[in-house]
Amino acid sequence: VSKSLKGFQDFTVKAWEMGRSDPKKVIFAIKMGLALSIVSLLIFWKGFKEDISQYSIWAILTVIVMFEYSIGATFIKGFNRVLGTICAGILAFSCAELSILAAGQGEEVLIVSTIFIAGFLSSYLRLYPTMAPYDYGFRVFILTYCILMVAGNRTREYTTAVVTRLVLIALGAGVCFVVNVFIYPIWAGDALHSLVVKNFTDLAVSLEGCVNGYLKCVEYERVPSKILTFQAYDDPLYNGYRSVLESTKREDTLFGFAIWEPPHGRFRMFNYPWKNYVKVSGALRHCAFMAMALHGCILSEIQAPAERRQVFRSELQRVGEEGANVLQELGSKLERMEKLSPGDILKEVHEAAEQLQKKIDQKSYLLVNSESWEIARHPQVFQDLENLKENENTMLGFKSASEAVLDLRSLTLSTPSKDSQHNLFAKEASRPSCFSFNADAGIEESECRSYESASALSLATFASLLIEFAARLQNVVESFEELSEKANFAEPIMNSAVV
Amino acid sequence: VSKSLKGFQDFTVKAWEMGRSDPKKVIFAIKMGLALSIVSLLIFWKGFKEDISQYSIWAILTVIVMFEYSIGATFIKGFNRVLGTICAGILAFSCAELSILAAGQGEEVLIVSTIFIAGFLSSYLRLYPTMAPYDYGFRVFILTYCILMVAGNRTREYTTAVVTRLVLIALGAGVCFVVNVFIYPIWAGDALHSLVVKNFTDLAVSLEGCVNGYLKCVEYERVPSKILTFQAYDDPLYNGYRSVLESTKREDTLFGFAIWEPPHGRFRMFNYPWKNYVKVSGALRHCAFMAMALHGCILSEIQAPAERRQVFRSELQRVGEEGANVLQELGSKLERMEKLSPGDILKEVHEAAEQLQKKIDQKSYLLVNSESWEIARHPQVFQDLENLKENENTMLGFKSASEAVLDLRSLTLSTPSKDSQHNLFAKEASRPSCFSFNADAGIEESECRSYESASALSLATFASLLIEFAARLQNVVESFEELSEKANFAEPIMNSAVV
Repeated sequence: VSKSLKGFQDFTVKAWEMGRSDPKKVIFAIKMGLALSIVSLLIFWKGFKEDISQYSIWAILTVIVMFEYSIGATFIKGFNRVLGTICAGILAFSCAELSILAAGQGEEVLIVSTIFIAGFLSSYLRLYPTMAPYDYGFRVFILTYCILMVAGNRTREYTTAVVTRLVLIALGAGVCFVVNVFIYPIWAGDALHSLVVKNFTDLAVSLEGCVNGYLKCVEYERVPSKILTFQAYDDPLYNGYRSVLESTKREDTLFGFAIWEPPHGRFRMFNYPWKNYVKVSGALRHCAFMAMALHGCILSEIQAPAERRQVFRSELQRVGEEGANVLQELGSKLERMEKLSPGDILKEVHEAAEQLQKKIDQKSYLLVNSESWEIARHPQVFQDLENLKENENTMLGFKSASEAVLDLRSLTLSTPSKDSQHNLFAKEASRPSCFSFNADAGIEESECRSYESASALSLATFASLLIEFAARLQNVVESFEELSEKANFAEPIMNSAVV
Repeated sequence: VSKSLKGFQDFTVKAWEMGRSDPKKVIFAIKMGLALSIVSLLIFWKGFKEDISQYSIWAILTVIVMFEYSIGATFIKGFNRVLGTICAGILAFSCAELSILAAGQGEEVLIVSTIFIAGFLSSYLRLYPTMAPYDYGFRVFILTYCILMVAGNRTREYTTAVVTRLVLIALGAGVCFVVNVFIYPIWAGDALHSLVVKNFTDLAVSLEGCVNGYLKCVEYERVPSKILTFQAYDDPLYNGYRSVLESTKREDTLFGFAIWEPPHGRFRMFNYPWKNYVKVSGALRHCAFMAMALHGCILSEIQAPAERRQVFRSELQRVGEEGANVLQELGSKLERMEKLSPGDILKEVHEAAEQLQKKIDQKSYLLVNSESWEIARHPQVFQDLENLKENENTMLGFKSASEAVLDLRSLTLSTPSKDSQHNLFAKEASRPSCFSFNADAGIEESECRSYESASALSLATFASLLIEFAARLQNVVESFEELSEKANFAEPIMNSAVV
């Protein structure tokens, strides 16, 4: 008992927290209660006439069903309700006239068979893909039709039945609209706006996290199986891009609601381009896939040695930072609904990507295992390999003379000793391995080298994914510009452009 | 008019096609019509008593609301309906007793305020995340409570009202259950099973498509903006992995329904491990992310030259094929509900990946621009570079003597002439470029080289993503094994293991 009491207590605390963190939910609940009270008051006040009270279910049902969280959703439901009811009413009228013509038992047979046909058709069409937004309308249609035919048949007062119901539905719908629109309205458009803004921030966090994590050589002792199956997991880096990827459905839903909403708040425009919000978010998602691939490099079994990562440190970091800056900038522009400042927002990140590219170009020998360009055991070849190595060293000598000290350090670090090679392999083997080629074959020299090369290549992969990320930003910027044009965003204030 | 007639005709044809391709939808619609007819017949047959007919809405409403596509969904709705109704009934009884104690106007005030409180609480708790499956229960609760209080208050026959309603709801629910379960049942578990099987096939198609497309140097004239924003687009390669990624929500929904379903068909087991289906699919999704990244290499602006891709042709293709084979094999095992055959299903793909790795190892000079290891304009260095090149050629000569003819061919192809270099760049510039570093800077020699190196690196990226794909298959196989254990899949028939 005390356990369930504890559970109840926890639940209450959490429910309270939910209200504190998102007061809109509390407001929604209060509005719902209010709408119901008003409707029941109206029914009481209209008098205790048999007729009304018997049908009161219609008004209450309408409120309960139509009262949705956002105004757009309420509008859609209302539209469906009205359309469904009217169609059902008209059809019921016609069929009722027909059934009255048929005498005795034939009448009921006729009614039941029309119910079957109406039920069949409406449930079938409901499944038609483009009919999804009208799903509720079909339900209302068949409900109203059945009730009218079954209940109306008894009294034969089809007209009264239909009119009373329509009045009560209108009453319920009216109360819904008034309460929902005029008391602290909750707009789906606002929610969509904030969701897209949040996506920008999330992705920026994720990108920086990936790059920094990679440079810090963050490793997962054992990759959490929740990440392996793409479920929610408490890791800011992972959650950042995951929430961007997961928001598709929510965006679509909110978009479906938002287009029904009248101009409001900061969105004072008919035909507000909500579609473009979805588009911006889609372009952002295309970037998020790259963030995911970057994270994949961190999760991977095959890891580049830390020393080599350090060589590219500043370049990688700069691309990451600039990329995150662009995202943050776009996010805050979107939040403030400002157009882009003149000048190329991508200039910095492109420069950074270019520098990374050049660095890769110069240091590409670090990304592959040049030792294994030869089959080392082949005796004639061995000589050549030595030559090659010498040449390499001279070459590097020249370069380090003309470049920074960092290069010298990287040179010494990057020439892998047999020791480090074995360490690397030992680590691979000791980790709970998801993927080891050598499960059966035992430890062989050639495999060590294979790993060595793979591990260096993974750095190349990380870098080129990062460059691809930067490339995809272009697409985000373009869709943002399209949105800002169509939605008439404000011209940027110049001093904010400086910041 | 003729236009709308045409539209209607199209619609009819499409609706007909929908029925032909998925007869379950027709069956569902027929069942729905049947259930409604049965309920209305029962209401007619029970006689035209005022009482029943007035409340007939309850039976019909129950059918319409509870009759869901799959049996699991019907069960959940039914459970919610019963729970909500009973709770509301009990609460309404108690409040009604209280309100009778209060005299005159006080009674109505009391009723309206309890409605407010009930409405507030139920709408608030409905928003609590873990309450999502009971959303419908809360709606039923508040609906029933309001109706009982408002309508019951008039006649003061709370008991009759509640009992009649309960009987009618039970009637509707009973008809629903019988029709839905005993006439051609549609199980959510079946749907989940086929969905996961389909995901395997889709991903296999996508993987092979990616590898083949990459080797054929498929290029998008202009990447469709639908792909850039991850919307549906008619491209089998893209749709393959997209459907795997998009099926998350559907899987979760079906899982939510399937756990409510009793053992049935091929799933004769209590507590069938549906959870593991979701897990397998999650692991598969983790692979699909890699397929997406592979596709990203095809979509990218920066492309590896075709000749270099050909060098790795057989290895890349083998990994792709073996990977797809594993997926197809797992998919058909899952479909037939068989355990894995003894022996390592991943052996082939791991070998293939290892070979690819070795090949990369040997040919890694093709993946980077070895020319740019030096600042080519530096005169002292130039000499060394020439030496290096000579060495390289000798080296390759040795190798080609000891290896296959393919290598000789690849050697000539792989030494990039100035021509091909410029062609590559020209192509880059002529494409509607999303991302060009040289937008402002003009064409410079160094940038040509930068592209050259980037383009070669993109091949390395593709290869290492493919290897990562192979690595992630391990995870899929493990989760499949867990599922096959828990779900007691059949032992494989030995001759199928040979195939």
